[in-house]
Amino acid sequence: MIVERIESEGLAHFSYIVVEGSKAFVVDPRRDCEVYLAIARREGARITHVFETHRNEDYVIGSMEVSERTGAIACHGPGLDFDYGETLEDGQVFAFGDLELTALHTPGHTDESMSYVLVDKGSGYDAVAVFTGDALFVGDVGRTDLPGPDKRERLSHALFHSLHDRLMTLGDGTIVHPGHGAGSVCGGDISERAFSTIGLERLQNPLLRLTEEEFVKDRMGQRLDRPPYFRRMESMNLHGHPAMSGLPEPIPLSPKGFKAALDRGGSLLDLRTPDSVSGAYIKGATSIWLDGLAAYVGWLMQYDAPIYLVVEDPLQVERAVRILVRMGYDNVAGYLRGGMSQWLREGHPYEVLPTLNVHQTRDLVKQGKAVILDPRPGHEWEEVRVPGAMHVFVGELQSRLSEVPSFTKVACMCSAGFRGSMAAVMLRNLGYENAFNVLGGIGAWKAAGYETEE
Amino acid sequence: MIVERIESEGLAHFSYIVVEGSKAFVVDPRRDCEVYLAIARREGARITHVFETHRNEDYVIGSMEVSERTGAIACHGPGLDFDYGETLEDGQVFAFGDLELTALHTPGHTDESMSYVLVDKGSGYDAVAVFTGDALFVGDVGRTDLPGPDKRERLSHALFHSLHDRLMTLGDGTIVHPGHGAGSVCGGDISERAFSTIGLERLQNPLLRLTEEEFVKDRMGQRLDRPPYFRRMESMNLHGHPAMSGLPEPIPLSPKGFKAALDRGGSLLDLRTPDSVSGAYIKGATSIWLDGLAAYVGWLMQYDAPIYLVVEDPLQVERAVRILVRMGYDNVAGYLRGGMSQWLREGHPYEVLPTLNVHQTRDLVKQGKAVILDPRPGHEWEEVRVPGAMHVFVGELQSRLSEVPSFTKVACMCSAGFRGSMAAVMLRNLGYENAFNVLGGIGAWKAAGYETEE
Amino acid sequence: MIVERIESEGLAHFSYIVVEGSKAFVVDPRRDCEVYLAIARREGARITHVFETHRNEDYVIGSMEVSERTGAIACHGPGLDFDYGETLEDGQVFAFGDLELTALHTPGHTDESMSYVLVDKGSGYDAVAVFTGDALFVGDVGRTDLPGPDKRERLSHALFHSLHDRLMTLGDGTIVHPGHGAGSVCGGDISERAFSTIGLERLQNPLLRLTEEEFVKDRMGQRLDRPPYFRRMESMNLHGHPAMSGLPEPIPLSPKGFKAALDRGGSLLDLRTPDSVSGAYIKGATSIWLDGLAAYVGWLMQYDAPIYLVVEDPLQVERAVRILVRMGYDNVAGYLRGGMSQWLREGHPYEVLPTLNVHQTRDLVKQGKAVILDPRPGHEWEEVRVPGAMHVFVGELQSRLSEVPSFTKVACMCSAGFRGSMAAVMLRNLGYENAFNVLGGIGAWKAAGYETEE
Amino acid sequence: MIVERIESEGLAHFSYIVVEGSKAFVVDPRRDCEVYLAIARREGARITHVFETHRNEDYVIGSMEVSERTGAIACHGPGLDFDYGETLEDGQVFAFGDLELTALHTPGHTDESMSYVLVDKGSGYDAVAVFTGDALFVGDVGRTDLPGPDKRERLSHALFHSLHDRLMTLGDGTIVHPGHGAGSVCGGDISERAFSTIGLERLQNPLLRLTEEEFVKDRMGQRLDRPPYFRRMESMNLHGHPAMSGLPEPIPLSPKGFKAALDRGGSLLDLRTPDSVSGAYIKGATSIWLDGLAAYVGWLMQYDAPIYLVVEDPLQVERAVRILVRMGYDNVAGYLRGGMSQWLREGHPYEVLPTLNVHQTRDLVKQGKAVILDPRPGHEWEEVRVPGAMHVFVGELQSRLSEVPSFTKVACMCSAGFRGSMAAVMLRNLGYENAFNVLGGIGAWKAAGYETEE
Repeated sequence: MIVERIESEGLAHFSYIVVEGSKAFVVDPRRDCEVYLAIARREGARITHVFETHRNEDYVIGSMEVSERTGAIACHGPGLDFDYGETLEDGQVFAFGDLELTALHTPGHTDESMSYVLVDKGSGYDAVAVFTGDALFVGDVGRTDLPGPDKRERLSHALFHSLHDRLMTLGDGTIVHPGHGAGSVCGGDISERAFSTIGLERLQNPLLRLTEEEFVKDRMGQRLDRPPYFRRMESMNLHGHPAMSGLPEPIPLSPKGFKAALDRGGSLLDLRTPDSVSGAYIKGATSIWLDGLAAYVGWLMQYDAPIYLVVEDPLQVERAVRILVRMGYDNVAGYLRGGMSQWLREGHPYEVLPTLNVHQTRDLVKQGKAVILDPRPGHEWEEVRVPGAMHVFVGELQSRLSEVPSFTKVACMCSAGFRGSMAAVMLRNLGYENAFNVLGGIGAWKAAGYETEE
Repeated sequence: MIVERIESEGLAHFSYIVVEGSKAFVVDPRRDCEVYLAIARREGARITHVFETHRNEDYVIGSMEVSERTGAIACHGPGLDFDYGETLEDGQVFAFGDLELTALHTPGHTDESMSYVLVDKGSGYDAVAVFTGDALFVGDVGRTDLPGPDKRERLSHALFHSLHDRLMTLGDGTIVHPGHGAGSVCGGDISERAFSTIGLERLQNPLLRLTEEEFVKDRMGQRLDRPPYFRRMESMNLHGHPAMSGLPEPIPLSPKGFKAALDRGGSLLDLRTPDSVSGAYIKGATSIWLDGLAAYVGWLMQYDAPIYLVVEDPLQVERAVRILVRMGYDNVAGYLRGGMSQWLREGHPYEVLPTLNVHQTRDLVKQGKAVILDPRPGHEWEEVRVPGAMHVFVGELQSRLSEVPSFTKVACMCSAGFRGSMAAVMLRNLGYENAFNVLGGIGAWKAAGYETEE
Repeated sequence: MIVERIESEGLAHFSYIVVEGSKAFVVDPRRDCEVYLAIARREGARITHVFETHRNEDYVIGSMEVSERTGAIACHGPGLDFDYGETLEDGQVFAFGDLELTALHTPGHTDESMSYVLVDKGSGYDAVAVFTGDALFVGDVGRTDLPGPDKRERLSHALFHSLHDRLMTLGDGTIVHPGHGAGSVCGGDISERAFSTIGLERLQNPLLRLTEEEFVKDRMGQRLDRPPYFRRMESMNLHGHPAMSGLPEPIPLSPKGFKAALDRGGSLLDLRTPDSVSGAYIKGATSIWLDGLAAYVGWLMQYDAPIYLVVEDPLQVERAVRILVRMGYDNVAGYLRGGMSQWLREGHPYEVLPTLNVHQTRDLVKQGKAVILDPRPGHEWEEVRVPGAMHVFVGELQSRLSEVPSFTKVACMCSAGFRGSMAAVMLRNLGYENAFNVLGGIGAWKAAGYETEE
Repeated sequence: MIVERIESEGLAHFSYIVVEGSKAFVVDPRRDCEVYLAIARREGARITHVFETHRNEDYVIGSMEVSERTGAIACHGPGLDFDYGETLEDGQVFAFGDLELTALHTPGHTDESMSYVLVDKGSGYDAVAVFTGDALFVGDVGRTDLPGPDKRERLSHALFHSLHDRLMTLGDGTIVHPGHGAGSVCGGDISERAFSTIGLERLQNPLLRLTEEEFVKDRMGQRLDRPPYFRRMESMNLHGHPAMSGLPEPIPLSPKGFKAALDRGGSLLDLRTPDSVSGAYIKGATSIWLDGLAAYVGWLMQYDAPIYLVVEDPLQVERAVRILVRMGYDNVAGYLRGGMSQWLREGHPYEVLPTLNVHQTRDLVKQGKAVILDPRPGHEWEEVRVPGAMHVFVGELQSRLSEVPSFTKVACMCSAGFRGSMAAVMLRNLGYENAFNVLGGIGAWKAAGYETEE
């Protein structure tokens, strides 16, 4: 018996494959599903089922892809009318050799949310593990706001009961396999540790110590971002989508070919780090550093245009493509061969993003020559901020552009410089020639001993 | 924070690497240690410590190899005078970023046995996991017979207290990472499941339900094999050994070169399956099928002569080499290029191992023309056997040769045919031309509806 | 500029990828085309063209697969009405950066055969390499019998002129990249060396020293096998076929499931070596050792039934699948999990293939108790044979069954024992209980000093 | 028979492995020699010999490493007293199955230079290939200046005769396998094409069309750089060196640890591209972009201090380590974990490298406010340059610092911006606060239509 957790980089999405003898099943697979097939192949097993914990919002689920390759059946929770696969009932049991998997209806995050309880009959009838999807995370629980404000209170109550009446009764020794880890947009404060047990959560998860009233209040008060791309994911995961066969192969393009592709309406996505971007970038680029791609692309990129990439190293193309297809951006059409250096060598126009260090920034603000724009998400702003800074989340920057002053320098300052760079490039593309990135961000600001509010 | 379990094929030995930020440690590494280094490299971390749970008996520990490559410090339990590394005290604490690892003295399997308790200060101060070495397995506990009959009772009591007073008090939610899995020679009845929790063991581990008196009696009565190579492993693990640099590269040899090497005193090790061996094998070969290599080589092969391999497929050479070096057989000198077919094509002499099916076997026994020799280990014999069969464990066959009748056919019959083949080849090498392997073994015997005793 | 030769194992088929800057093309790709894509990806290049040297007969060409993945255009020679891609004219030129590729019509093997001449304008205008397909091999030339007896003489003349008037005039320094290497069924006596030059062929290729008259006579007299599957390949390569997306994933089956699949009409293909087969095999199996799969499967396996595999090691499944799909056997449906040992352990019936060594064989023949059946292809028989042996090529054995004596032992003897095993299993499946395989074959026969004719 | 060319990235060094049956040999191996062992292992062959074409100057030869791992004998040309291996005589013959390798003394590049001629007795006795080391390249021939000015004329004559009397007489169809490809510091104008034949070189190599007098004059007039590290390589390759066991594993360091290591005397090597460097770099860094590492590190880095790396992506660390050890920089001690971004986030000081575009540069020069410093090697400067620019090769910049004006802006401008960046960073480290890099370099300058001299 093998249980392997597969993490989708950037999304902090955890999927699982369980192999017992010649049979295997997958929980919440990602679209680039070769990883599950390879494990099954290595073990001489066949994937017969895909269990979805819920209609996911933050990525395109890979059930269609796994089914297409293996013939596995996709299984959903009850209460939502999926256009593919089968709908399970609460308590439905599946046998995989000595293993028994029981579907446990645990609504709250959504109405159709399911957990899956694993029993190893070889050793007894206690739950050895549970796949909790977005109901229970390590140190956190699921959000209840996504299905809509009218359902939120009802779902918060439901989640309380799913947690206390169903999951916490499984036994302290039951291992918890959640749907997300730290950094996911699906949780506010998930632990860096990817694994836990019911017993550990009972002792350490602050949300599980609340009364029902406190719990519902907490959930109702939670302010998490809802990136605009969620709606598209929900629709694709409900209605299904054509199974992707192989990853897209973006075409290497010369600077001229790249320029022509952009002129034909392509979207330019620059995945380099802020120090590179400040050296030179192409006007009009959406700038998201590679490690931040999963978190920000859904806020900034449209789905209709083909995407053309600028990367530091061609080895990064595949990583970028994987992240993009998991979020439904299948049309990754090309990349700039030879990178920015080749672009520069051929004499194409470029922009420089001027940067400030924290000392310069502070001086300029003091002298009234600059304002600080903080582009971080709301919850980070609430934790710590620079006095006097204005807060406009980078995901909303375009729609709140009128709030950004044009008469003075705008020092975009995030925690380290990544999102500051994103914001400053965006502002410059929109005509704000006075936008700067603050290298080092609040990290360097604090290291310099300058004042912050918490 | 990452915890990865690495299994050493065949030995069912579990080692672990834990990475937290830029630091990492390894528990009970194997000698071919590139796997740990690759994980550390991937995570941008440095392995600073190797924690040994005890002086292992069944494999050469890779602490020297990891230390040589990374500078990590090897840490041992107290009470045994290791010639390398550092000796820990009970309760000694190590910090790895947010993680805290506490050495917990848990004698019983041996006097210096240590467990290591992991706390994740990011979430609280409860034990999130414990590395239990050979104290606690999933569904089983450590054996107490290895240090010697005079110490056995004392160690059995010690183990009881280590389990109940130290490990079981960690909290039901603590995840258990044992030193071995199912199939290890270090446990009698370890579960197929590789992971567990204190809570699950409390509910499901039969050894933990015994009183101290019952427990000690059980341990004293346990009859497990002690392969002769254990002594060598103990010595190497106590005194250290030169760190292996890279895996041995057995030389591909033509049939002529292979023969010459054997004539110069090489040991011939045939790793093919019983059906292949029955077709043709080279006289004098020690026959152990590849998947059984780890379990049987320590019984059958001497350490002094260079080893020459016969395999089905050259891809299997590396797998064999890994298993052999883990058990201290570093001198894997060559393999037969082109396999048995090339040997045959060049007209070299070979033997055929005649086989019997279960129907033939039964008829011969009934007619008094054959005896069944069961070469399986004692504990398997105790579980099920064919009435009238004689039992000589293959590991002891050479020393108990006088018990094997020479006047009649000897039908070597194990559970399926693997060990029967080993035994029959060994008998034939020793002059028993009347030895046969029973294909399908007791499995097929039962499938045919023939009688067994349990 | 990169030229890489990719060999398709077993078929001795050579395909090529040429990369120049951001562009690449492929010559005669195989179906499992990931290898070309990976090279192009590594080099940051795009495959824009597939050049076919002719309608191949011995494998399914991968042009559809490459086109599907990359958008490349498939290019054919003139004179045959392909249902896909584009037809080239003699002398048509393609530019890839500094490279120039010229299509050179070189009929003879077939009417539409093309060679492709590469010029590197960076260094001059001489031909630096030529892709000769099945016109010119290292040490051999193409066969002219495949399009039909009525065309053979005309094509032999055409080939002479293609060689002498077109290829040999390219310059002695031109590197020759042929379509096949040693072991291909497309040539009689291709060199073991995979590369050559026009100059080397002029000096060393015996076929190029003949006058036109001698040459045509030689070609007309050539007796090469034409496996029945050629017709299917020709049709698929002419009319196209649905592009394969990913390799088939044969399902691991338990012995019971395997048996059921066979009972439902599956074909059983046993890929183990003769020594394994002689130990135990399943009645009805087509036995072809893995390294001989490409050479013999097209003679022995039908295309209509799903194929179920028996292998020595699960690692061999993928290798087998690749060979099979290259020959159009896409329906590789399953394999026996746990191999023959599992089959035996569960008590399923099996057959033993008795073997003879060469000494036994010779004695039996002398005593009139056995005949030797030589199952090798005609050209091997012509090279060397055992006096008194009867020759029935294994590919024709089923249709010439009436020639095989049933009153005496039939000792199937090939060069080493592989094809003897195939033949003996086939005979036993057809009711010849007197069929044996001679281990070591003619190789061992000669090594023993017994008589042969040459 | 297999011949594989292995290119060492950056050095444009070609090594070769030849496998024939169970034997293999290597020509001019690199130190990270796993690649040869893996090929030999895959083919079931043993590497028995290493043939060195000469005492290499531009990299540490891997003969010691291959010998250590395989027992192979290192073979050198005559006339130099190597401290390891064996010295061959002209005409000495080695047999590898059907292959025959003949050592051919071809002095000129050095006195002990050897070529190795391959004959395939399976097809005839003509030379099928020749390994020419640094005697003959594709489109070029070896330099004769390295052993010293007093020997140069004599060696130039010797090279002429080695080429015409020995190599060119091998036959036009002989394939040429040279020791270097385009971009090597060992040749001035080597073709981009990595393979050739004697016939092609006869037609296309301009050096082979010269008379002896012209040839010697040409060689005597050749002006190629001689990086200072050559002397060290020559010594290591003559006297041998301890075989490297495994690649160095640089330690991931936090910004603080990184700073401390530098303070203890470590050398800082920044491998990022110019756009990144211009955004932020650490004062004191030697800046060489990764693809230029092999070409420039030997000019700029000392051998005595441990090296600490800054990279864009941790995946680049291994690539960098490989290049460095090939050049004898074994002490690659650490790298900055999290890259520059982490450095900035923690508030450590950094420098910005201001850049100019070509338009700004031209204006400044026109206004007398800047001079252009061209840091390219001499031969590039001779090909094309900007009128009025001053030329100081970056490898000599430190020793010619007094020539660099300090009263005005210094616009470092190379072909695209890579070496301009190197030079500008070096100048700034040395106190020239007026140094700038020109992004796009001469490439962009020409694209803008500005004047150049050729």
